[in-house]
Amino acid sequence: MVNWFSRKGKRAEVPRLRPRSEAEPALKVDLAELTPDLLTFLGKSAYLQLTIFENLGRTLALAPTTEAKETLSRVAALSLAKHHGLTAEIRRHGEEPGAVMQPFTAAIDEYQRTTQGADWHEELLACHITAGFLDDFFVHLASGLPSDYAGRVAAVLRADSGSELLAEQVRRSIDENTLLASRLAMWGRRLVGDTMLVARSTLALSANTVSDEARIEPVFTELIAAHTRRMDALGLTA
Amino acid sequence: MVNWFSRKGKRAEVPRLRPRSEAEPALKVDLAELTPDLLTFLGKSAYLQLTIFENLGRTLALAPTTEAKETLSRVAALSLAKHHGLTAEIRRHGEEPGAVMQPFTAAIDEYQRTTQGADWHEELLACHITAGFLDDFFVHLASGLPSDYAGRVAAVLRADSGSELLAEQVRRSIDENTLLASRLAMWGRRLVGDTMLVARSTLALSANTVSDEARIEPVFTELIAAHTRRMDALGLTA
Repeated sequence: MVNWFSRKGKRAEVPRLRPRSEAEPALKVDLAELTPDLLTFLGKSAYLQLTIFENLGRTLALAPTTEAKETLSRVAALSLAKHHGLTAEIRRHGEEPGAVMQPFTAAIDEYQRTTQGADWHEELLACHITAGFLDDFFVHLASGLPSDYAGRVAAVLRADSGSELLAEQVRRSIDENTLLASRLAMWGRRLVGDTMLVARSTLALSANTVSDEARIEPVFTELIAAHTRRMDALGLTA
Repeated sequence: MVNWFSRKGKRAEVPRLRPRSEAEPALKVDLAELTPDLLTFLGKSAYLQLTIFENLGRTLALAPTTEAKETLSRVAALSLAKHHGLTAEIRRHGEEPGAVMQPFTAAIDEYQRTTQGADWHEELLACHITAGFLDDFFVHLASGLPSDYAGRVAAVLRADSGSELLAEQVRRSIDENTLLASRLAMWGRRLVGDTMLVARSTLALSANTVSDEARIEPVFTELIAAHTRRMDALGLTA
């Protein structure tokens, strides 16, 4: 069994496909048995989504052209709609989003700090890579939610995040400055490592480590494969 | 005639009313003859609205509580919707928003720098005060747009900006820290001065300074009165 959290160097062999948005693979496995309780799921996913929005806002403010700003404003609107879709589910459950998100803010704020890019290009890649991975992860996990929530929450999470708009911006940056590619490839590896850890911390793990890992491993294999396709579509080595 | 851009110290006597959102006064005068061409109007108002959104994003990131972050996310969504309502009009006219906004970015970026608060409280007040003033100003100016645009654009500009949500946050900050009131009152004066200048720079002034001032003066008197009511509703001296 592969443990994604300690392996080094080895890379999964995945088919080189077109960008994810053009050929979204069906999810073959899920994490339903490790899904946390509803409010933990909603609080954590909603606050992560708010963090993604904050990062988009910062990236928008740094954008080098008015056109890039305009594109990011459209991505930001999609991201906010996703956040508000999740907080609407919190309210439907009779709770206040602020209070439900509160327990998860310290760890996620720390994740935000470690995934903050050094410049506009790194910020842009971070927005794309982290949102893509976390959307995929929470869609997997949503299948374990109570049945009156699972479908609606999955629909919110599957909604367009503007990933193709972000990917196009990253590709343009690389086209204009080919030296950027190796730096962004390294940055992508760092991002996915930190994002896997924050995702994993959401799982309701049992005392049985072997059985947990057996469930986690195939899902993270899929998530990494999707990440690799995402990097590939940018012309970057994952 | 009063020239709002050089007067010192004197304050207009205005009735102390409830918050603007509860008792929105009808606009009694307008600036139709000083309205610039359609694309200048749309480019400038859309980029100012994007700047307001950027400021909200920064304020959200600084918010001291998860609840305040959540409130600001709702205001940010309203602000983005307003920006996209204006860029939709630019596209309807067959132009790209980025290119149409471009000529106005340098001056508005400078305005953004001078109205950036020193802390969360100042940022929050800036979001409220600048959006309130600029919404009012562009609604006045919209009456001079071509008739197939004027109504739709005014409807976009009149849409809810979340001003009551922002006002409530400012009032809470002041309740928790009464020393803040005098600092914020001063900051409000600085904000309205800079905002009046950026608004004024949008006007299509003629060579006839006297006739221009005769048109501008009653409108700015109304805008200042609305600003004073807005400050008053926060318990702050304008």
